[in-house]
Amino acid sequence: MAASTELPSLDLLISQTLSGSDLQEYNRIHYGRTDHHELEVKKSSQSSAKENDFDLAAYDFPTKKEETRSPRIVRVGVIQNSIGTSTDKPLVEQRQAIFDKIRKIIESAGEEGVNVLCLQEAWSMPFAFCTREKQPWCEFAESVENGPSTQFLKEFAIKYGMVIVSPILERDEVHGDTIWNTAVVINEAGKVIGKHRKNHIPRVGDFNESTYYFEGNTGHPVFDTKYGKIAINICYGRHHPLNWLMFGVNGAEIVFNPSATVAGLSEHLWAVEARNAAIANSYFTCAINRVGTEAFPNEFTSGDGKPAHKEFGHFYGSSYVTAPNGARTPSLSRVKDGLLIAQIDLNLCRQTKDRWGFQMTQRLDLYADSLNKAIQHDFVPQVIQ
Amino acid sequence: MAASTELPSLDLLISQTLSGSDLQEYNRIHYGRTDHHELEVKKSSQSSAKENDFDLAAYDFPTKKEETRSPRIVRVGVIQNSIGTSTDKPLVEQRQAIFDKIRKIIESAGEEGVNVLCLQEAWSMPFAFCTREKQPWCEFAESVENGPSTQFLKEFAIKYGMVIVSPILERDEVHGDTIWNTAVVINEAGKVIGKHRKNHIPRVGDFNESTYYFEGNTGHPVFDTKYGKIAINICYGRHHPLNWLMFGVNGAEIVFNPSATVAGLSEHLWAVEARNAAIANSYFTCAINRVGTEAFPNEFTSGDGKPAHKEFGHFYGSSYVTAPNGARTPSLSRVKDGLLIAQIDLNLCRQTKDRWGFQMTQRLDLYADSLNKAIQHDFVPQVIQ
Repeated sequence: MAASTELPSLDLLISQTLSGSDLQEYNRIHYGRTDHHELEVKKSSQSSAKENDFDLAAYDFPTKKEETRSPRIVRVGVIQNSIGTSTDKPLVEQRQAIFDKIRKIIESAGEEGVNVLCLQEAWSMPFAFCTREKQPWCEFAESVENGPSTQFLKEFAIKYGMVIVSPILERDEVHGDTIWNTAVVINEAGKVIGKHRKNHIPRVGDFNESTYYFEGNTGHPVFDTKYGKIAINICYGRHHPLNWLMFGVNGAEIVFNPSATVAGLSEHLWAVEARNAAIANSYFTCAINRVGTEAFPNEFTSGDGKPAHKEFGHFYGSSYVTAPNGARTPSLSRVKDGLLIAQIDLNLCRQTKDRWGFQMTQRLDLYADSLNKAIQHDFVPQVIQ
Repeated sequence: MAASTELPSLDLLISQTLSGSDLQEYNRIHYGRTDHHELEVKKSSQSSAKENDFDLAAYDFPTKKEETRSPRIVRVGVIQNSIGTSTDKPLVEQRQAIFDKIRKIIESAGEEGVNVLCLQEAWSMPFAFCTREKQPWCEFAESVENGPSTQFLKEFAIKYGMVIVSPILERDEVHGDTIWNTAVVINEAGKVIGKHRKNHIPRVGDFNESTYYFEGNTGHPVFDTKYGKIAINICYGRHHPLNWLMFGVNGAEIVFNPSATVAGLSEHLWAVEARNAAIANSYFTCAINRVGTEAFPNEFTSGDGKPAHKEFGHFYGSSYVTAPNGARTPSLSRVKDGLLIAQIDLNLCRQTKDRWGFQMTQRLDLYADSLNKAIQHDFVPQVIQ
């Protein structure tokens, strides 16, 4: 689906252009470490990646051993992908085409021993919210417990003993058939242990999501899984530092940011926001973005004075993982499906807190008081003339 | 003072290594725009920069004209510098040596029409807090109203009609002779209009500042100057998203981040944090870091198991400016003193708010409530087993 004129990877470009001490310095300053600590993957995974045309990369985050706690090594995996067929096909066919391509990537994740896997936002459908058409797109909304996405993923969760985070368009039949942008958490036994609904809904560019669903009402849940405490900050929530903060306050060690965002809007922000959140909150963040260009059957306008058109723009992939200490992996491809694996030790969260002390020094009481005042209608900002 | 083995500039390295469409893509993705919009500076400024060995760079941020508001074009300047002589000299001589070198740079800023100028953290002294010695370093603490730094800068404020932000070590004689890490705001008439005290004090690496001064008690003031609403987030406060947030809530259009931080600790975070703050809060941020290596007369330890030593490590400069839309300038040198000028239109703040809607969608009421709960001793995090 990707336009052939797109740069495949900025990270690759740099690593192929710089060398010696220049590359070392670039890596130190940009990635926070001179060595990416690439991990070997199995030959079978390499073959599958080649055959099925997805990017495959794995990195380690070596962490100091503690004297009183055992390491808590976890393999995190994230998947980015384009849709599987054109958007004018029957919905069930569209979904099946995505399932078919995702199956191959999940199998590689399983073979590589991934413990916690997260897919991209609304992974089982095209990102049709640019159209503002309710039909047929609302039909992709599905049940958290028994929808086709959950059914499809349960099998892999059980087979590989994997926790899977599945961001879908949710249909809540119990509460007025409402639609939500929701991440479903399936545990390693294939059981749905809970869900989180996107807290902040965009009204920018073609992201007309507020036409379809409301701000989430599930708070900032942290899911205490077999493989660590995880949370999900869905897409536009990454622009909101308070959203990231509350997942940290609730004890998250890994926060996934399943997204769908396009080059013209946000690409220069992409490497900044999820990484800043990892630093500020001393946890791991995994930023995931979809790939390729999605065209829709009917034309739509973008509220920018330009003529109607049928394409959403280029989803630039570039998924990456940041550690609590600010070190990060290179990004996956800008144009291809991909599986990124990071081997992490959750102990690094507390080690980073002990080193930097952001939680000790953050003065939450001051800010609770400040925000209480700021939300009043008669709030007077602190301005000195 | 800078070690000759240090890379002068990562930005320069990239711009000299990449070319054509590769450089364009790097600039688009990394800086948020393909053109840096460099501004010409006067021949006399160029000569002064060469003669006095400081880096000089100026950039424009062209902004859309509105129909109902006039542009509010402001020239912002930031200065980064090494100290002026060795730290075993008499204190008054050390301070004078800094004044002497800063004078030249301020004069260039004045000649280039800078309207608002900010110096680095504790600019009139070495960053001696690594030593944990109270004497002689506490003697650098000075009065906000009448101290030598304020006296020195007033003259330039009046001469050039410039607002100057002067981050100093403050002595508060009225309140028990206490010491504070404080930014003084001097208006274009040479009058001190207020001060802000650093809200978050580090306890990391050699940053033993909590030995000397306490968390600030001045809130999050925004100074409504002739040239826009400005605020100051001092150094370690940049790691705290809530600190940035409250300056935004109080209406800041430009937030300066005068800092002193070293390569081994924070260089991979530097390009992330102040930039993220600009994006999240839809204002301009100016990140300023001192330059060079500072050695002290007596040895000290760093709490890292390593032998006692006399050097603080390399202050890596790299000051830069970010616009509310996330576009940024290249950094100043990693090794030289420098003056960075950015010509900005404050109207871009509101334009960015109208585009992205972060303020509309940030749900402050939700977070006021969440923080109220989080600060209670019997707080129960939202955890799903």
